[in-house]
Amino acid sequence: MTGVAAARREAVLGRLRELGERVYQDIERGVFPSVEIRSRSVTNIVYDERARQFVLGPRTVKRSSHNLKQLRAFTQLLWLAYFSNRLISESRTSTLRDVYYSVQAYNLDFTDQDESDELVVDLETLLGRPREDFNIYPEERSSIFGDLTVEYTVPGYEGRRINLSSHPDGYMIGPSLSTAEFIDTSAELVLAVEKGGLFTRFVEERVHERFKAIIVDMAGQAPRATRYMLRRLNRELGLPVLILTDGDPWGAHIAAVVVAGSANAAHISEINVPDAKWVGIWATDIRRWRLPSEPFNEQDLKRLDELGRDPRYQAGIWREQLEEFRRLKRKSELEAFAKYGLTAIVDRYLPLKLEEAKSL
Amino acid sequence: MTGVAAARREAVLGRLRELGERVYQDIERGVFPSVEIRSRSVTNIVYDERARQFVLGPRTVKRSSHNLKQLRAFTQLLWLAYFSNRLISESRTSTLRDVYYSVQAYNLDFTDQDESDELVVDLETLLGRPREDFNIYPEERSSIFGDLTVEYTVPGYEGRRINLSSHPDGYMIGPSLSTAEFIDTSAELVLAVEKGGLFTRFVEERVHERFKAIIVDMAGQAPRATRYMLRRLNRELGLPVLILTDGDPWGAHIAAVVVAGSANAAHISEINVPDAKWVGIWATDIRRWRLPSEPFNEQDLKRLDELGRDPRYQAGIWREQLEEFRRLKRKSELEAFAKYGLTAIVDRYLPLKLEEAKSL
Repeated sequence: MTGVAAARREAVLGRLRELGERVYQDIERGVFPSVEIRSRSVTNIVYDERARQFVLGPRTVKRSSHNLKQLRAFTQLLWLAYFSNRLISESRTSTLRDVYYSVQAYNLDFTDQDESDELVVDLETLLGRPREDFNIYPEERSSIFGDLTVEYTVPGYEGRRINLSSHPDGYMIGPSLSTAEFIDTSAELVLAVEKGGLFTRFVEERVHERFKAIIVDMAGQAPRATRYMLRRLNRELGLPVLILTDGDPWGAHIAAVVVAGSANAAHISEINVPDAKWVGIWATDIRRWRLPSEPFNEQDLKRLDELGRDPRYQAGIWREQLEEFRRLKRKSELEAFAKYGLTAIVDRYLPLKLEEAKSL
Repeated sequence: MTGVAAARREAVLGRLRELGERVYQDIERGVFPSVEIRSRSVTNIVYDERARQFVLGPRTVKRSSHNLKQLRAFTQLLWLAYFSNRLISESRTSTLRDVYYSVQAYNLDFTDQDESDELVVDLETLLGRPREDFNIYPEERSSIFGDLTVEYTVPGYEGRRINLSSHPDGYMIGPSLSTAEFIDTSAELVLAVEKGGLFTRFVEERVHERFKAIIVDMAGQAPRATRYMLRRLNRELGLPVLILTDGDPWGAHIAAVVVAGSANAAHISEINVPDAKWVGIWATDIRRWRLPSEPFNEQDLKRLDELGRDPRYQAGIWREQLEEFRRLKRKSELEAFAKYGLTAIVDRYLPLKLEEAKSL
């Protein structure tokens, strides 16, 4: 289980070096340097049925120093590669916002944050690695709790270990945890929940012990570092990942993005968890448990229509529950189980869901 | 430094018991039970210049079981007192949303979440304690990092200690940390920052060691549990609390709420930190550091006008910087320092601010 983070670091450094070498070689051969990047235009984003993920098609776009229109983007891309290489070498992280401001020292100003964000996506596409691998992290953080011992690889903490069950309010999932090695766990599954309230409930009711679970609070739409962590728990430790959200189109979609990725991130599959399962709250649960519910509003209905056209919702439980939601036109929150007492969701709902998950 | 959490628990249980006894006594004396609560209407919220906080004036409102119009509110209030008493006795926590649903088991349905939230505020006002003291926590969490050893009081963790510098991504500030006892620290100050990105920057640049600081990420407008934690760090450990926000009216206000509280929470002062200091980004910093900045938009200007009429901004640095913002009409983010390199904010800005804070 060791060396995963180090291997990832070497991989991305290697690709940055290749990029640099290509540019140097072009110059030495007397040709204008350029790079080819797979196109992320809507027409080149395809849903791969077999991999159950969004991926990019074969079309590419060129950024050349020979073309005056592309020169600016080409130069910015090389600067970002340089900046990322320095981040990794110095073991520093940065946010997207930092990138936007950092370039100003080089008189390479971006028009706005969108341009700077797009550039980061360009580099992701070119290197085939998520930006977290070159130390650019989002602002948003979510948290984790459970019996998992990790060993840090960040400076000042190398070799130090902690167990993620020692702070009951949870551990932030940031750069240190993302790059830590997994050492040992007694957990047999991962429960990823939409809300902090339920996270705390699960910890208080000792779900980590009773169900041998690692509990992850996605805090709404899971930040990319969190999806990456869920993927690592699934791939490196072989743990099944079960997702619990509110019972509405938005909740379903939080789960779908963890499982199959987003069209926006079709260029990068390293953060998807195709084996993860959405176990609730299903539309059928709302009826079956007579949960307090509210009628769909216009946004809910519109979202439901959109999901109906989404390739991720065309089969299995996704399609089934979408149809049920369309009939029911009502939504329920995870907290609605409190009607049956604060512990009902753990004592009664969760065991049933774990059982049902086996046949998903 | 021990026993703080236990004392708080006893205090609130005592007040709940008193409330119950008053109701029983009324019944035994043959009178309809009622309670008096200090009014939270706008006209009864006053700014206490001496305490530098919003407080409630002397006016009260009555909730009586004798008045048919008040009976529902009176019953709901008693139910919430019962529910809170059970939460504390069972060492469980709940969210505001849980409260809304839990009452449904008693056929005491709230019209909507607003009514249920208002009821929680009624109980806070009546008991004179923040809802966190009767185990009702917000969803939002922020995080903390630094050399502080705490001892938990929550079930399953009683007597266990951790040091809050052992996980470099930070520890969530939830029910367990809020009720933990502070055991030991080498820190000499607290730095509360607006953003997760800066939090990570500070940890990476070892601000906790170089400046002997405990670092708190407020994650925007600080959740109440976080303001409560800042207050405890200030009161129990005697540490100065310095606040760093973006340089705009919104940032200033994040700081003002930590210091002087909000009108909404005028009934409860246990979460304010009157001694905390806002050290930046000031309007004067934007000019002095030639920070990348953007012109105010309409919302910024409107907010600035509102703050100009706010009693919290009528003196000292608050007034001074508000005037400066009015002249400058530009804003800068904390990340803007990245123009001078990622570590400039730590190496150059922070030392200066710590020096300036001494004369605030």
